[in-house]
Parts: sequence; C-alpha cells; structure tokens
Amino acid sequence: MSEMNGSGPVVVTSFPVRYAETDAQRVVYHGSYVVWFEVGRTHYCDEAGYPYPRMEAEGTFITVVSVTATYRKAARYGDVVTVRTRFGGMSSRGCTFFYEIVLPGGEVAAEGETKHLFLDAASGRPCRIPEGIRETFRAFVGSA
Amino acid sequence: MSEMNGSGPVVVTSFPVRYAETDAQRVVYHGSYVVWFEVGRTHYCDEAGYPYPRMEAEGTFITVVSVTATYRKAARYGDVVTVRTRFGGMSSRGCTFFYEIVLPGGEVAAEGETKHLFLDAASGRPCRIPEGIRETFRAFVGSA
Amino acid sequence: MSEMNGSGPVVVTSFPVRYAETDAQRVVYHGSYVVWFEVGRTHYCDEAGYPYPRMEAEGTFITVVSVTATYRKAARYGDVVTVRTRFGGMSSRGCTFFYEIVLPGGEVAAEGETKHLFLDAASGRPCRIPEGIRETFRAFVGSA
Amino acid sequence: MSEMNGSGPVVVTSFPVRYAETDAQRVVYHGSYVVWFEVGRTHYCDEAGYPYPRMEAEGTFITVVSVTATYRKAARYGDVVTVRTRFGGMSSRGCTFFYEIVLPGGEVAAEGETKHLFLDAASGRPCRIPEGIRETFRAFVGSA
Repeated sequence: MSEMNGSGPVVVTSFPVRYAETDAQRVVYHGSYVVWFEVGRTHYCDEAGYPYPRMEAEGTFITVVSVTATYRKAARYGDVVTVRTRFGGMSSRGCTFFYEIVLPGGEVAAEGETKHLFLDAASGRPCRIPEGIRETFRAFVGSA
Repeated sequence: MSEMNGSGPVVVTSFPVRYAETDAQRVVYHGSYVVWFEVGRTHYCDEAGYPYPRMEAEGTFITVVSVTATYRKAARYGDVVTVRTRFGGMSSRGCTFFYEIVLPGGEVAAEGETKHLFLDAASGRPCRIPEGIRETFRAFVGSA
Repeated sequence: MSEMNGSGPVVVTSFPVRYAETDAQRVVYHGSYVVWFEVGRTHYCDEAGYPYPRMEAEGTFITVVSVTATYRKAARYGDVVTVRTRFGGMSSRGCTFFYEIVLPGGEVAAEGETKHLFLDAASGRPCRIPEGIRETFRAFVGSA
Repeated sequence: MSEMNGSGPVVVTSFPVRYAETDAQRVVYHGSYVVWFEVGRTHYCDEAGYPYPRMEAEGTFITVVSVTATYRKAARYGDVVTVRTRFGGMSSRGCTFFYEIVLPGGEVAAEGETKHLFLDAASGRPCRIPEGIRETFRAFVGSA
C-alpha cells in the first residue's frame, strides 16, 4: 500500500468483485473501477457524517467534473478488493477525492482522482458548498 | 429467426457488442441482454411515434413489473447483434413487450418478455395509460 | 420477508445501493437486480463451501439458461439492500436458484429465479455436474 | 465542436443514450462515458482496418493503462450522442486515443484520453506492437 495523496482519514471499503464487473480479458473491466471510486466516495461521506442521500434530500447535488484512473495490476473475480478513499481539499464550490483500489495481497490495482462541483438541485447550477457540509468535512479531515 | 410472440410490427435495432458487456467467460454477460431489451423497447416507442422521453416530459413513467430472459447461444464481442421487439398487448394500466436477440448468422441468442405498469410521475402511483399513448400504440400495432 | 421458494439454508448478503445502479426514475434500474442475484449466488457458493472461482479453476463454468425477476417496490440510493438466496434443486447437468431482494424495512423489492447449466470449460459443452460440486451442494442444502 | 487533440482522421460513432446509462440525477452517469470511449475506440479500429476482435484472435490484447475524462455538460436519455475518436500516437508497446462526446446540438458533453499497452495474450506480458497493427494504424493516421 502506497502513501496516498490527500489529507485526513483514509476510509476503507471492501467487497468481492462481481462477475458482471469482469470482461472478456478475464479481469475486471477498466470502467468498473470508476464505479468503485463512487462506492468509496459514498462510504467516505457516510463516515464523515454527512451521507450523500442526505445532501440530495436537502437540495444539493454533487456532480463529477473529472475523473482520472491509472491501472497497475488487474483485479479478478474471486478477489475481495478494497477501496481506500481520502479527501483532497475543498474550494468554494468544489472538492476533490483520491482513491486506491487494493488487491487481497496488498498490491495497488489502480489509483484515481475525482473532482466535483456542488449544484443547487432546484436550479441545476453550481453553488457554494453549504456550510453544514463544509464544516462536517473540515472536522472529519482534521480528525485524522 | 423464429416466429415471435406478440402482434403487429417487429421493430429491428442493431448495434455492435461492447467490450463492457462481456464477462470472464469471454461471452456477453447475461445481464446485458436485459439492457438490450430496453434498447429495443426505446426504439419501438420511437418507431411507434411516441418516444419514451416525451412520455416522461408529459408526466408518465413506465416501470418494469417483470422481466424474463431465456438464453440459447452466446453473443460475443465482435458481433453486431439485432434486437427484434414486438408489442404483446395492453391492459388498462400496463403493457407487455416481447424480444429476440439475434446473432449475425441469424441464430437467436436469447428471447425475453417484459411487463410494465404506467405511473403518474407526480404521485408515483399506477395510472391508466394516457389516451394519446394508447391510441398511438393501437394504431402502430394495427398497421402491420 | 416472505416464505421463499427452494430448500435448505437461505444465504443473506447485504450491501449499499450504488449510484451507478440508479436510473433517471431516481430508483434502482431494473437490470441491476439481475446483477444482485449474481452477487447472492456467488455468496451462496462461498457459504456452501465451493466458491465459484474454484469451479472455474477446475474447468467448470456455470452458465445462465434463464432469469426471471418480478419487481414489487423500488430500492433507492441510500438503501442497504439484502439479497436472500436459496437453492432450488439440481438435475444431472443443471441447477436452480431463487432470490429475494429485501429493503431496509423488510419489504421485498424484487424476487427472482435463475436456471443454470454446467459447462466443460475446455469444450464449451454442457456436462454432468462434477461429483465434488454435487456433494457439496447436497450436504449444504441438507444442513438447514 | 472543438479542435481535438491527436492526429489523422476523426472517427464518428453515434447512438442513442440508454436508460441504463442514466442515474438518479436524471442525467447520464459519469462512468458511462468511459464505456462510450471504448465504443469509439472499437469503431476506430474497425475503420482503421484492424478490428480489435481480430487482434485478440491473433493473440494480442490491448489493455487500458489510464483513462481521464472531463465533463462539461450532461447528456440525457433521449439524446443521440456522438463519440469522436482520434489517434494520439504510438510508442514501441503502447498507444493513446483521444475522445469527445458531442450532444445533438453540437456541444461537447465530455472529453477524454486513454493510454494503452499491448499484451501478449498467452503470457499476459507487455509486448511490442505487432508490425501489421502498427502499419495499419500508421497508414490510417497518415490518410487524413
């Protein structure tokens, strides 16, 4: 396991690879890792204390502005993989997350980064990060 | 190609298999066919003259009540597959579609059926099929 | 929770809904349940003592011959859903599984059934269920 | 439409958005674009004259080493989207592709880049790009 980018706690999420996530090269399809980043991000928000469904219920959407993924070693059906998710900082209207996908033996299968903008759900327009969300993330990142 | 269940026109939709749709058995993942049924159903509504996005814009959702799929022969990456979609009838609040997935050589890879209920989008509750939709489907089915 | 079809132990698998699994009706896409059935089936084989990756490593593939799913109530992002998987019997070359998808409050979101054939991986042809697999499932089903 | 990165022909691939590709924000799920890049790449290889299934049949796999996607404007169900794919060059063992996803009105929904390594399928190890593939791509890129 490498020294990850970002700051504060690393949230750890593990689950078995699904057959649906493999492809004809007999390994995990590269697009599946992008879904796993999102699984890690969801868990991160839960652990930080502001579940994403609560944000949506309060009228805030988080959109994805960019994603990068770098692949090092294939995950396979039968593996229990681990997503390690860490916060990468906030601007007034956006934030960044970093990810590592780790194989059962500890090797990094992939790493990535997503950048996000907060949207007002009613208007569909970018908005400042609501204060409650901002404070929750700040406290959680500072707790590590 | 078999004699399909249902009545009226058979709408034909063709596209190449995506790598994402394969799995570690090196053939198309069985769940991908359920998505292909939906691709055929979307095209059917277009051809019938009542595109599904228009239904949603007018406040009507169609939900899936059941799906069955039977698999006969594997589709593979590199195949251009064809979905054949046919209407199976309407009740006051629901309808049925039948599907065949056909391989390049004409063999049937899979066949299936979906049953649907119409929902009022505002309330989320089942509703009678709006008259405009009912008449459009009736005319299209009768046109074959 | 209903009285499920099938016999022997019910294997229980829980996980949070992924955003990727939702659709524009703001609920889980109907095709996602078919993937969840497979997640339940994988876990069932693990619990029974014959993990599916071991079967493949030994040269046996299990293919899906048919799937049926009936939808009763929508699952949503934010829900932790539970797959309940139960064995439905074996013939000389095939077997059946039953599934229920249960919402956090205990309501059944969907139920389904899959039928399978065993294949010899080398030839790609249907084969008798290898004795070790047959005995493992028989013992597990009888243990409940 | 922007001036794309890369050199040579831009291969154009269009298809309707699938309901399965949307999410609960009522727009296309960000991970779906990564699949669309792959659809564009498949079509590019067809147009260049060396279909990817032929490469696999000849014992060469192309793996994805990295993917980046930047999102500008949401695609929606009902849109016919266009993938524009262009070659970004070859090294001895790898190559790069660039992509744009274009909305019906001509706006760019997303752009991206993938980097690839060629693998010998038998050994699973990186290999030099086979000469026939190299020459085919060189000729196609030079033809624009």
